[in-house]
Amino acid sequence: MTIEYLSQNLAFEGTQHVCSHRSRETGTDMTFSVYVPPHMPGIKLPVLWYLSGLTCTHANVTEKGEYRKACAEHGIIFVAPDTSPRGDDVPDATEEYDFGKGAGFYVDATQDPWSRHYRMRSYIENELPEIIAENFPADMARQGITGHSMGGHGALTIGLRNPGRFRSISAFAPIVAPSQVPWGEKALARYIGDDRAAWREYDAVALIEDGARAEHLLVDQGTADNFLEDQLKPSLLAMACAKAGMMPEIRMQSGYDHSYYFIATFMAEHVAWHAERLG
Amino acid sequence: MTIEYLSQNLAFEGTQHVCSHRSRETGTDMTFSVYVPPHMPGIKLPVLWYLSGLTCTHANVTEKGEYRKACAEHGIIFVAPDTSPRGDDVPDATEEYDFGKGAGFYVDATQDPWSRHYRMRSYIENELPEIIAENFPADMARQGITGHSMGGHGALTIGLRNPGRFRSISAFAPIVAPSQVPWGEKALARYIGDDRAAWREYDAVALIEDGARAEHLLVDQGTADNFLEDQLKPSLLAMACAKAGMMPEIRMQSGYDHSYYFIATFMAEHVAWHAERLG
Repeated sequence: MTIEYLSQNLAFEGTQHVCSHRSRETGTDMTFSVYVPPHMPGIKLPVLWYLSGLTCTHANVTEKGEYRKACAEHGIIFVAPDTSPRGDDVPDATEEYDFGKGAGFYVDATQDPWSRHYRMRSYIENELPEIIAENFPADMARQGITGHSMGGHGALTIGLRNPGRFRSISAFAPIVAPSQVPWGEKALARYIGDDRAAWREYDAVALIEDGARAEHLLVDQGTADNFLEDQLKPSLLAMACAKAGMMPEIRMQSGYDHSYYFIATFMAEHVAWHAERLG
Repeated sequence: MTIEYLSQNLAFEGTQHVCSHRSRETGTDMTFSVYVPPHMPGIKLPVLWYLSGLTCTHANVTEKGEYRKACAEHGIIFVAPDTSPRGDDVPDATEEYDFGKGAGFYVDATQDPWSRHYRMRSYIENELPEIIAENFPADMARQGITGHSMGGHGALTIGLRNPGRFRSISAFAPIVAPSQVPWGEKALARYIGDDRAAWREYDAVALIEDGARAEHLLVDQGTADNFLEDQLKPSLLAMACAKAGMMPEIRMQSGYDHSYYFIATFMAEHVAWHAERLG
């Protein structure tokens, strides 16, 4: 698996890489970013995955996320994938910001015409970890996952489905129950089909209802977030966790909105929280 | 002087404002950003000006600069203006990234067709400070100035010409002697004309040779900066300061390039350095 380095910049004494490669899962070229903090040669470092939200690429968090200082201090590798397959031959819904390109929802689509390329679940769960392990000084036994909005949904569901792989899960303003909100209902119906039972593995609340557990779970949610009431609904996660006997930290952050200003404010705390759990 | 708030976002418990207003100096609408850190009502805070480089608007540092955490910790207001007049009726050199829009060079142009709108010197020195004083809790007796590349040139020259207003001057990879490098020779010839004597007030090295002094001066320069040898030439500033008996801190930062990854790495140190001198 060959990767191409599109850029490499020194930052906080580590290196911010942006890479592209041909993906076997999506059948397209894919771009991702990896920050490798300063470290002694030969040692391997824990990895924090960050999954981005609707309309984003790897670039949003890479430019605005303010994670590098904390990752340098804690010795954490930070991986930021794209949010969907890309390219002229990938079907899209060009009039819709919340479906198609930029809106992969971290599923393996089963419905035409989406099933050929929209395989972000397998891309994140299987293919990209192999590439990270092969090309960077990553200790794959110590991984955490976080994300924002649609990417918070991705972090929660991928983390909950793979408890042996991810020791710690956090999210910024996640979609916690896509089956119960307009963004999720629209995406899952078209990517996965009308059988709502098939949606449950792509819904954090349903996964917990069905028995999935996470020991370490942190969520930050701004109270001034425009999407809080209609799309995000953190209370559904809180209720599911309570019923399951889980003790997540769900923090309502007064006055914060859905933007990267919110994410950047709490990013260093998330990095430190994961670092503590990843050892 | 009315200003319009284009956005206001909570960040690190302070507010990131983006504003626009009609400028009397440039004769255009102008956009700027102001971060106001958390503070007690009624108190006034020191101000740090940040002038951006070629091709930038207020947005580059606002999104990528990573200054808000440090400004929140030190109680510093951070002001980021645009780099040139904007609008359809502003003459431009559309094929050139280093002249015209996005490349105002912080001069008051004297040559046609530039002299009508290209008045970034007076805009930064006179008009925008009035707006900041009127609309934000700014203590205008405590101001520092910094900037990057062309904006480092702006910070050095505006700071050196106004020692009573700016207690502290810093810069990231500044153009220190525009009269002696291609970017500056091109811009000054067209904005100011062929008389090189008239360029000296827009050249930090020439200003120091002509008697300007700064007590507190900090420069960071990456050693892997593509523009170091041809356009930036920090050794010319070091020599001029030495001859003038000035003791600047000029720090060569090993391996850093010209990008915002470099700026963000050292931004918190610059904010802290200014804060110490602004009291």
